[in-house]
Amino acid sequence: MATQDMQSRDYAAALDQHDPLHHLRKDFCIPSRADLRATSLPDLESRDAASSDESVYLCGNSLGLQPRLTATRLQQYLTTWATQGVFGHFKPIDKSPLPIWLDVDSAASMSIAPIVGAHVSEVNIMETLTANLHLLMSAFYRPDINARHKIILEGKAFPSDHYAVESQILHHGLSPAESMITIDPPPGEATITTSYILSVIKTHASTTAVLLLPGIQFYTGQLLDIPTITAAAQEAGIFVIWDLAHAVGNVPLSLHDWNVDAAAWCSYKYLNAGPGAIGGMFVHERNSQISSTASASENIDGKHFVNRFSGWWGNDKSSRFAMENRFQPIPGAAGFQLSNPSVLDITSLNASLEVFEKAGGMAALRAKSLKITAYLESLLEASPHFEKVFQILTPKDPQQRGAQISVRLNDGLLDIVMKELEERGVVVDERRPDVIRVAPAPLYNSFVDVYEFMKAFSEALDAAQKAK
Amino acid sequence: MATQDMQSRDYAAALDQHDPLHHLRKDFCIPSRADLRATSLPDLESRDAASSDESVYLCGNSLGLQPRLTATRLQQYLTTWATQGVFGHFKPIDKSPLPIWLDVDSAASMSIAPIVGAHVSEVNIMETLTANLHLLMSAFYRPDINARHKIILEGKAFPSDHYAVESQILHHGLSPAESMITIDPPPGEATITTSYILSVIKTHASTTAVLLLPGIQFYTGQLLDIPTITAAAQEAGIFVIWDLAHAVGNVPLSLHDWNVDAAAWCSYKYLNAGPGAIGGMFVHERNSQISSTASASENIDGKHFVNRFSGWWGNDKSSRFAMENRFQPIPGAAGFQLSNPSVLDITSLNASLEVFEKAGGMAALRAKSLKITAYLESLLEASPHFEKVFQILTPKDPQQRGAQISVRLNDGLLDIVMKELEERGVVVDERRPDVIRVAPAPLYNSFVDVYEFMKAFSEALDAAQKAK
Ligand SMILES: Cc1ncc(COP(=O)(O)O)c(C=O)c1O
Ligand SMILES: Cc1ncc(COP(=O)(O)O)c(C=O)c1O
Repeated sequence: MATQDMQSRDYAAALDQHDPLHHLRKDFCIPSRADLRATSLPDLESRDAASSDESVYLCGNSLGLQPRLTATRLQQYLTTWATQGVFGHFKPIDKSPLPIWLDVDSAASMSIAPIVGAHVSEVNIMETLTANLHLLMSAFYRPDINARHKIILEGKAFPSDHYAVESQILHHGLSPAESMITIDPPPGEATITTSYILSVIKTHASTTAVLLLPGIQFYTGQLLDIPTITAAAQEAGIFVIWDLAHAVGNVPLSLHDWNVDAAAWCSYKYLNAGPGAIGGMFVHERNSQISSTASASENIDGKHFVNRFSGWWGNDKSSRFAMENRFQPIPGAAGFQLSNPSVLDITSLNASLEVFEKAGGMAALRAKSLKITAYLESLLEASPHFEKVFQILTPKDPQQRGAQISVRLNDGLLDIVMKELEERGVVVDERRPDVIRVAPAPLYNSFVDVYEFMKAFSEALDAAQKAK
Repeated sequence: MATQDMQSRDYAAALDQHDPLHHLRKDFCIPSRADLRATSLPDLESRDAASSDESVYLCGNSLGLQPRLTATRLQQYLTTWATQGVFGHFKPIDKSPLPIWLDVDSAASMSIAPIVGAHVSEVNIMETLTANLHLLMSAFYRPDINARHKIILEGKAFPSDHYAVESQILHHGLSPAESMITIDPPPGEATITTSYILSVIKTHASTTAVLLLPGIQFYTGQLLDIPTITAAAQEAGIFVIWDLAHAVGNVPLSLHDWNVDAAAWCSYKYLNAGPGAIGGMFVHERNSQISSTASASENIDGKHFVNRFSGWWGNDKSSRFAMENRFQPIPGAAGFQLSNPSVLDITSLNASLEVFEKAGGMAALRAKSLKITAYLESLLEASPHFEKVFQILTPKDPQQRGAQISVRLNDGLLDIVMKELEERGVVVDERRPDVIRVAPAPLYNSFVDVYEFMKAFSEALDAAQKAK
């Protein structure tokens, strides 16, 4: 097809027809334009009729859409609780698609492991992202001001990561001014190069304890070179933690093979588990081993393991209920669990992970993601406004990005552009003062979504230019 | 009525008739006997017809029953997510009973504050119980081996609390053998007296940093004298944390007036928010203040406050999204938040808290609780097996207990008794090797429940005696 054709809706529709994952879209609740305009809760039944009016939702980087299966699974959860009470913890229910509650966390681990590229025993669904970063640092950040005490992170880290690191440093009586090393992009640039990151690591090699970086940077959408950076930092003796908020369920990950030390993520973005839903954690098996070599410190019952903030849910399952108060951690990430987890939250997550499985996993999703994001990029680049009224912050190299493309608008356009997009039923995410983030999620977004976005975005830019 | 009458079902039914809270029972999903026998998920509609067959569920100390409102509120949550996507965070919906997601945590704080006797700004719904204990200790346990370094807890603490304390001590490079002080009941006794607790505090007064005790002991059901113990420990300069897992929603609490330093709880027991549901935290306003006195340590932007593991959700709401990476904690417990919380979980909790409000709050519930627990005790004491085949571990003084009565059986009876109870559709909780815990929850249990329990328990004891 000619370039001109690429600009047509028919071209987008044809891409959808050839998309082997297109059928998954109907497994999601796509808000309609009428829904988004509504100011009261609709009756879901009358609503389904009007679904031809679907909005263009390109905001899965902020909050993923609801899988249709979620309502079914939550209803089954409610029925189990209503009819079994406390027996839901351990009584198997025939033909129920839900695990007994005692196994709900291991069921989630089995589903999430392939998504992050880990052994099942290396992952763990619990608490929330920032909490998990703290729990990991509590175990693995043991600063010594005369040796390793620094934590390296981005200068423009997501605030929660910044606060987490700062408070961890203060917790140990150290000063962020001395122990917190930030990596900033060079003046005028949005993204950081791998070689620059490696140079910062090198500068602080002998005094750094922990490196905390995002798999995908929330603002620019840059996918960092996790294996290269991990290897370089580890070579320098640094413990490497990745914040995978924007990477999990978005790009394929191989945490185990990349030898990542530890990682944490949330499940409300590309994992579609709902607002604020339960987080996850990866601990490389190297770091969670239990040996029977007695040791002077950290020796409980002759067992030696990394001390971590502990709880009964991290205790060996067979003695968890024995109430004997001798901590025997489960080998692996599960030994970092604290509490019995929210079955409601995990049920919601597991429902979404069923759809990931149906999709064929991350490889299939990535194949589509590369195409649909490239299509978005090509439409943006073909716009007469490109590099005049807006620029793209996200790297052009597909290997350096996931689903999200961040677009920086000229000064003073953001508010009008967002308003115009909203009026057209297009949902993207804004980062004040001048950035919009556009994320075609391969599970539910279509090429026509991207086409419609571009049409609305052009109109919005025209309107914003005029209003200026 | 004569003692003999007290033993009759009619007497129990009359008590129900005079119970001003009896109507609340119909607001809960009570598993039927058929449900408990079923091995597959029932169709909820066909099920409702058979509700005359209600089981006797006296297990709210382990997992509270599901309020009927929960399903409605979760459906509304799902509809909001399905139709609004990311706008659910901030777009008000007319006539929706649910707050916008950005306010869901403050809505929960408003509902929970009267239940624990706190100012709204002193409480916070987040993470899970054990995690919250760790977060509180991370902020307030700052041991100095040459001064205060010990944590006092029960010798028979719930394992998670034991592990939490032990790992906190190890985290600071100290040894549990030296820094962990346990309070045990005298040999042969089940409960600990206040005076004994005070004597342990006195012994370790100058070297203790933190006291961590349960409001209600999980095993014996003993309600500790929170205000007296708190005052004595504070007099000695000790920071006092209460684990309220079994106390919250069970007995009235006045955490603020009792001057408690901090507390944490779960919401799946008497709060009926569902298995593993989100936890809660109390921080006395004294301990969360932010002053502008600059200080050498812990001084961010000229603000001085207790360093705590921090996250963006604890940051001042007005600058939370500004991405400026200068931590400005919300004054109060909310400044201890880390992550955006699970809206699903909080929606479930808030649904149950609506029922608490309908009940008239903790004073009304306690009035019924005192009666129904005394009734249970009187039936137990009137049994020919009392003090021959079983004893009561829970204190006789109603001021020293909540809804739960713990019963210790003679050796070797537990398994048969539990089996016989189960066959009769009676659900209580067992603690191996020989204890059952029986908890009439005033929100949904009836006096007839207690009567039915006692009948089944007598039969079960007879059967167990015979089998022996
Ligand atoms: C007294 C007490 N403390 C702590 C816990 C641990 O709770 P969680 O698993 O929610 O951390 C429990 C759980 O039942 C408990 O009863
Ligand atoms: C990169 C990154 N890190 C951390 C967070 C904080 O997440 P949470 O509130 O779940 O802790 C977010 C939230 O969007 C994020 O995008």
